[in-house]
Amino acid sequence: MIAGGGYIGLEMAESLVRLGKNVTIVELAPQILTLFDEDFAGILRQYLEKKGVKIFTSEGIQALRGKEGKVTHVQTAARELEAEVVLMSLGVRPQVELAKQAGLRIGVTGAIWVSEKMETSAEGIYSAGDCAETTHLVTGKRVWIPLGSTANKQGRVVGVNICGGNVNFPGVMGTTVFKTFDFNVAKTGLSMREAEKERLHPVQAVVRGYDRAHYYPGGKESTLKVIAEKETGRILGGQAVGEGPSDKFIDILAMALHGRMTCRELASVDLAYAPPFSPALSPVIVAANVLMNKLEGRIEGIQASEVRERVKTSKESFQLVDVREEDEVKKQRIPNSIWIPLGELKKRVGELDKRKEIAVHCQSGQRSYKACLKLQHEGFENVKNVDGGMLCWCYDLESTPIDPSPSKGEG
Amino acid sequence: MIAGGGYIGLEMAESLVRLGKNVTIVELAPQILTLFDEDFAGILRQYLEKKGVKIFTSEGIQALRGKEGKVTHVQTAARELEAEVVLMSLGVRPQVELAKQAGLRIGVTGAIWVSEKMETSAEGIYSAGDCAETTHLVTGKRVWIPLGSTANKQGRVVGVNICGGNVNFPGVMGTTVFKTFDFNVAKTGLSMREAEKERLHPVQAVVRGYDRAHYYPGGKESTLKVIAEKETGRILGGQAVGEGPSDKFIDILAMALHGRMTCRELASVDLAYAPPFSPALSPVIVAANVLMNKLEGRIEGIQASEVRERVKTSKESFQLVDVREEDEVKKQRIPNSIWIPLGELKKRVGELDKRKEIAVHCQSGQRSYKACLKLQHEGFENVKNVDGGMLCWCYDLESTPIDPSPSKGEG
Repeated sequence: MIAGGGYIGLEMAESLVRLGKNVTIVELAPQILTLFDEDFAGILRQYLEKKGVKIFTSEGIQALRGKEGKVTHVQTAARELEAEVVLMSLGVRPQVELAKQAGLRIGVTGAIWVSEKMETSAEGIYSAGDCAETTHLVTGKRVWIPLGSTANKQGRVVGVNICGGNVNFPGVMGTTVFKTFDFNVAKTGLSMREAEKERLHPVQAVVRGYDRAHYYPGGKESTLKVIAEKETGRILGGQAVGEGPSDKFIDILAMALHGRMTCRELASVDLAYAPPFSPALSPVIVAANVLMNKLEGRIEGIQASEVRERVKTSKESFQLVDVREEDEVKKQRIPNSIWIPLGELKKRVGELDKRKEIAVHCQSGQRSYKACLKLQHEGFENVKNVDGGMLCWCYDLESTPIDPSPSKGEG
Repeated sequence: MIAGGGYIGLEMAESLVRLGKNVTIVELAPQILTLFDEDFAGILRQYLEKKGVKIFTSEGIQALRGKEGKVTHVQTAARELEAEVVLMSLGVRPQVELAKQAGLRIGVTGAIWVSEKMETSAEGIYSAGDCAETTHLVTGKRVWIPLGSTANKQGRVVGVNICGGNVNFPGVMGTTVFKTFDFNVAKTGLSMREAEKERLHPVQAVVRGYDRAHYYPGGKESTLKVIAEKETGRILGGQAVGEGPSDKFIDILAMALHGRMTCRELASVDLAYAPPFSPALSPVIVAANVLMNKLEGRIEGIQASEVRERVKTSKESFQLVDVREEDEVKKQRIPNSIWIPLGELKKRVGELDKRKEIAVHCQSGQRSYKACLKLQHEGFENVKNVDGGMLCWCYDLESTPIDPSPSKGEG
């Protein structure tokens, strides 16, 4: 039993499964990995469940029960779970008692306040690492993100400054990466949710991120999300999850954040290409192009979570169209979607209702983008492309006989 | 027999060796891979020679001989080589005949001149890809660097512009990567040689570039070079060669070039760290710190090629000091070097001559940096650290019994 679905809990889940243990994660929040958006946390959750990890979200732990000094059961808000060991990975807090007693200023984050020189409120006393707060370079706000990489850099800054030098530690981008089983999970900058909380207007692009040219054998894939600000095109952050080079994609995006790049600038960066290392267009560049398509108003996007909501609540005014091929749809499809393969869209366009809002999806978002353009050309005005398509759909699926469209019933 | 030691030739060398062929590369220039500095081309050369590839440099091909329509021998400036097949990989030139006949302007590079919109000198006619020249974003000069990644981006720009849009392709950083056997070889921006040709004053840092924390099993290493401008600290380029993540390092550096970063800025970027993905300080950041040490005048560096020259020509005024441990020195050492392990340096400092120029080396440059600081502390004024130490020494080596120092003879 692991209490807490953050990255330490998820890393430990792998280790414990490899030791042959049955692992259950209980998380109070509605999703694991709350630093990530719901869709990407959902991709990871599905993967972990396939690996045999049980996950319960939106469930607080109410009590640990046991006998003879050993835990035997965990009582959550919804159930009682048997447990041999309970690993508490509920996060950490900065230990600032000593600093408080010394009269040092504690920052808004609860960690020790420091200047850019890593100097505390008392002249000549410095603080670096997991007890010190710093600045988030996207939001400009004070944050406390304890990481070894940051501590290393801050330590050098303190070292130089106490020896008479004069250097600054400007802050962080919130870059993070971890590995669980064979999934590499990484993030930099803001998530959609975090950007919205900052009252920004974020737009996202979700693409498949291969680590090599499509014809080069042994390829691995991560799903990659890049987020930009609607008005300016400025890159705000990115997330990557999968067996592919998530760390590389996120490092490129972290550098884009440091360079305060727009998605237009990002679309023409000169990254290292040869077939064993990358597709000819880096997935980061493809995502930047998708963002430009959106920002220039070609096609509007819609998030999977919104689609689910609309399918539930706006049946009368909303149509979800699946433009994949038969073999893909047979495996699994989103309940209540209308299936029209891309190639048949033109002749079957009459099956769709122009007065309704239409969201189109495929596997990743590429074919559905083309479908949206076609529908617009046919006079449909309220057409949206589902960001990331099936890749980002972490809700219910059907694998039932195909009923291609409610109005026809062919196939 | 492969004529030409560029990356196509080196990629083919691998394929042919894997087919069981004896492969010889003949290159007119004094080194293979002329886009890279001599030291990094030397690292690769040593690796290829270990894989069984014979390499002759500074040797032009004078004739191909054969009988019955088949080649049997290749005559170079220095020798005659047997050959079953001769692969000509001498580079390509843009095919611009059609453009010339059409009256289009040909650029200084010999490729088709285009504007930032990829429009040729004739309004409404566009050119993209391997026939079109572009701008090098570090030098600002026109260049012709035909690559698939660039062609892809240019193609999109042309596509948008001919459909009534208005976008630019700003140019390239000269980023390139290729794989030969298990070595990943990558570059962005300018080499030391190219920067000197531009009358810049480049300074280099060479570090070991691991792909994970040192204690995490299965690690792979590339040797990484980062180059900055002496006066401003602006990053000018980088090179990486080895089994490690050369492509990732170079992508980070390409992004630093796009962001016009200085090495001070690069030293505090927030890259993705977890033990399976990177050391706590990315090798790129370590290199940026080494560059700062140099630019701030802590310790001057000296390139391996200069050391070799000085050892040859300035015996009376130059001392090369090896501060590695006995087991390392026993394997191989640079001829005419003085061996004093770092730990013994303080007590044996009297063996060195303060009036002479002293270059110190170790395996990678880290221990020799400490040795330089110690020597400066002991009053030595003309002390230099050999960039990259043994990693960058691609010249003669001895593996003879140890004569620890000319003056003592211990060990």
